[in-house]
Amino acid sequence: MSLVHLATPRRAADGRAWPVLLGERALGESLQRWLHRSLRLAIASGKLAPGSTLPASRALAAQLQLSRGTITAVYDQLLAEGCVVARRGSGTVVNPKLPDDWRVSPRRNRSGDGGERGSTFEPRTSLARSVAQWGTPFPLLTNAGEQAPLTPHLCDFRSFPIDVWRRLHARQLRPSRLGLLGDAPAQGIPALRKAIAEHLAMARGVSVAAERVVVVASVQQALDIAARLVLAPADLAWMEDPGYPGARRVIEAMGAAIADVPIDVQGIDVEQGMSIAPAARFAYVTPSRQAPLGVALAPQRRQRLLAWASSVSAYVFEDDYDSEFRFNARPVPALKAADAADRVFLAGSFGKLMFPGLRLSYVVPPAALLPTFVAALSITARHPNAVLQAVLAEFIDSGELDRHVRRMRRLYAARAEALADAARRHWQGQLALPAAQAGLDITAALVDGTGDVDAARRLRAAGLGPRALRAYTSTRWMPCALVMGFAAFSEATIESAVRKVAQVLR
Amino acid sequence: MSLVHLATPRRAADGRAWPVLLGERALGESLQRWLHRSLRLAIASGKLAPGSTLPASRALAAQLQLSRGTITAVYDQLLAEGCVVARRGSGTVVNPKLPDDWRVSPRRNRSGDGGERGSTFEPRTSLARSVAQWGTPFPLLTNAGEQAPLTPHLCDFRSFPIDVWRRLHARQLRPSRLGLLGDAPAQGIPALRKAIAEHLAMARGVSVAAERVVVVASVQQALDIAARLVLAPADLAWMEDPGYPGARRVIEAMGAAIADVPIDVQGIDVEQGMSIAPAARFAYVTPSRQAPLGVALAPQRRQRLLAWASSVSAYVFEDDYDSEFRFNARPVPALKAADAADRVFLAGSFGKLMFPGLRLSYVVPPAALLPTFVAALSITARHPNAVLQAVLAEFIDSGELDRHVRRMRRLYAARAEALADAARRHWQGQLALPAAQAGLDITAALVDGTGDVDAARRLRAAGLGPRALRAYTSTRWMPCALVMGFAAFSEATIESAVRKVAQVLR
Repeated sequence: MSLVHLATPRRAADGRAWPVLLGERALGESLQRWLHRSLRLAIASGKLAPGSTLPASRALAAQLQLSRGTITAVYDQLLAEGCVVARRGSGTVVNPKLPDDWRVSPRRNRSGDGGERGSTFEPRTSLARSVAQWGTPFPLLTNAGEQAPLTPHLCDFRSFPIDVWRRLHARQLRPSRLGLLGDAPAQGIPALRKAIAEHLAMARGVSVAAERVVVVASVQQALDIAARLVLAPADLAWMEDPGYPGARRVIEAMGAAIADVPIDVQGIDVEQGMSIAPAARFAYVTPSRQAPLGVALAPQRRQRLLAWASSVSAYVFEDDYDSEFRFNARPVPALKAADAADRVFLAGSFGKLMFPGLRLSYVVPPAALLPTFVAALSITARHPNAVLQAVLAEFIDSGELDRHVRRMRRLYAARAEALADAARRHWQGQLALPAAQAGLDITAALVDGTGDVDAARRLRAAGLGPRALRAYTSTRWMPCALVMGFAAFSEATIESAVRKVAQVLR
Repeated sequence: MSLVHLATPRRAADGRAWPVLLGERALGESLQRWLHRSLRLAIASGKLAPGSTLPASRALAAQLQLSRGTITAVYDQLLAEGCVVARRGSGTVVNPKLPDDWRVSPRRNRSGDGGERGSTFEPRTSLARSVAQWGTPFPLLTNAGEQAPLTPHLCDFRSFPIDVWRRLHARQLRPSRLGLLGDAPAQGIPALRKAIAEHLAMARGVSVAAERVVVVASVQQALDIAARLVLAPADLAWMEDPGYPGARRVIEAMGAAIADVPIDVQGIDVEQGMSIAPAARFAYVTPSRQAPLGVALAPQRRQRLLAWASSVSAYVFEDDYDSEFRFNARPVPALKAADAADRVFLAGSFGKLMFPGLRLSYVVPPAALLPTFVAALSITARHPNAVLQAVLAEFIDSGELDRHVRRMRRLYAARAEALADAARRHWQGQLALPAAQAGLDITAALVDGTGDVDAARRLRAAGLGPRALRAYTSTRWMPCALVMGFAAFSEATIESAVRKVAQVLR
């Protein structure tokens, strides 16, 4: 660790110099990521208190001998994450309204209950360090206005047939089915694994036996276990850039180094990945609909990715998060369907298909890893509630899941169309919206030179939910764009939100 | 790694020498644990195939320059775990009936579905190595005859009021409560955290605010996250010896070294722990009712343990697994109740109180670690099903949990008494049963010189569930004893099982 005394920014109120502990740069870590990580940690640990001013980018650039563009990019990212705010006349300051429990460590115990004296926690493990750097909980911005119009990544759980769900519970919770209250196999109950295998064959083009399916609480949990089994400290892992921040955080928590692989219209640029990090051990990908850009991974890229993984014995984690919602065509088959060399973990959640509070997902690990994966699950979380598993199995087997997905697909397609229609009328010259063909959200480019971080901040202040694309990347230059959701909002809400967006950004 | 060519045992059928890859001894690892671990790994990886013969203990002792007692102790432990069997005339052989999916890695993919070519997985991380060494899933012996009479650690889930549980589900699964289908806080829904805090105050003498409580799927999950936050590779951790094997495996999976601390009538011997591993970072303990010996940690020992943890900044993980079932007295308060220095994680499960398939538990981390713990949970598994959390909150708030626990306490007390009574009549001179004052199981000493590993094997063959105490330890000399459960079996079943035990062991 190197202690860097940052010069007092001219605008600082108290005039004193403030020391910031900037951690070591990790192997392969970019300067930008390193600075971002270090400042996050300083904020999370309270070394940079809420309300304190960061140095001007020019001064910090001179002191650290970095380009000013790097500093600005880091500040923009912190802005996008809500860690800092820009104040007219006083530059960039640590968000004074950071939730109190967001700051992690080390900190005094001020709870007072239980009679405990104050104590501190110094992170020493990769998980603890990673968490300390990011603050708690993930994601930072969900608490405030999760349901603000156009918030991305939300499904319409209020349209879920809760009456059907209640009846299925009533059918399982009977004295004649008391056996379900006992302990179940760590891998999941056979009925649900069979139902998922059939669902995968029908909906995802993946033909695997029920014995290959593992039930988990969430894709995040499957990713966590997969990464713990495969990634040793300092191993390299490919991440999509831009990509899903939750995956990035799990992989960082292993102490692994992330190689950011760019996305283009064909999906993840496999050739670039092979040139940046040819010997990576792991790749996290969203081939069916890239998160957040929405492109599908092109067929040749799929073959390249699988061939690369096979040639270097890397594992590919396929997060198949909302591919069932494809509006005008059959869903693209999962990458796993072409996985002849047995390198792919296929994981998917029922949370977006049904409702997020469900917390039931599945993973199909590579066959050679299956027993290891199940054993790891059996000593960590083991299985989710067994009755719930039985209820979901019946929901799938009875055709209710298919019916619900079809209904939601129509609903979401209409909402995507409502968004496109409103955008045509209100966003001319402001935002360029591609055609939404799938999923729950869409990324629209800012075409008039507005910065996305600033735009998202102003929209948030106006009660709107779009996020800056910058929040999905940590190292690269990105076009300015907003990620926005349409699936969870009525057509009337979408119409008025689109109009409001136009006003705010004008 | 050192490749040791073990001499062909005289009795081997094929007459060829077999090489066994014995791993490096870990820092602080005993010779016995090292040999046990290496042989387990050789069996799990298929290097020692089912049916193959192990060398005679005398020959192996000579070759490895170890005492013959060490070899015998390791063989006994493998016997207790069911990895090997003793054959009259051919010595110790790898269990020919090892479940096929028990062997972990590396192995060929023989599934054939999905068109995947065979591939292998070489463990490189501490989790993968730990899992590979132990086989899958945990615990090895549950599959075969889980419900065999006198199997330990089982509660009577068939007495759970499933009708009440169904009604509570029906009340939550209403269109007016659709909000429960949305995403919930990673820490758990406020209503359940409040209910748990009140339960802890009433039942465990621990006064903490709801904000301090974290909902998890299982104590195992809480232990996994706590250990990942606190234990860096090669750190030392105290484990009770004998102790719960599931906890041992999670801690080993961190790459940490385990210091086995002996148990006596006052519980874990803190002075011994301080002499064996004074600078340990973590201690796993079961203070209310030691698993599996059943003793409560004495008051002076509690003070010593907390003072030690505070002095070296270690964390104590208190697994409060079945303390509510205390038959003739009020439950002993949790260790956490005296945790003035904020060093204790208190974790407990509703699985044993209600039914094992529930998969809802709680943990109260040290206050200074709470935000870090919640952040780690938010990027790994996040929260269990939110409706289920609401149902459990109402089950607690309505007094149903208390009612059920009181009912079960009477039932289990009667069954403990039935066991004691039958033992008095049938086990004279064979087994010495202490008075069961709490919990679901009890450990009885074999007084006539019978070995516990052999006894458990013979009982298993006769359809009975007691386990050898040897299965709960990996390093020490242990008295020969059987761990047996009474809570899940009717008085008639207990009576006939006790009689059968006497016959089998005669």
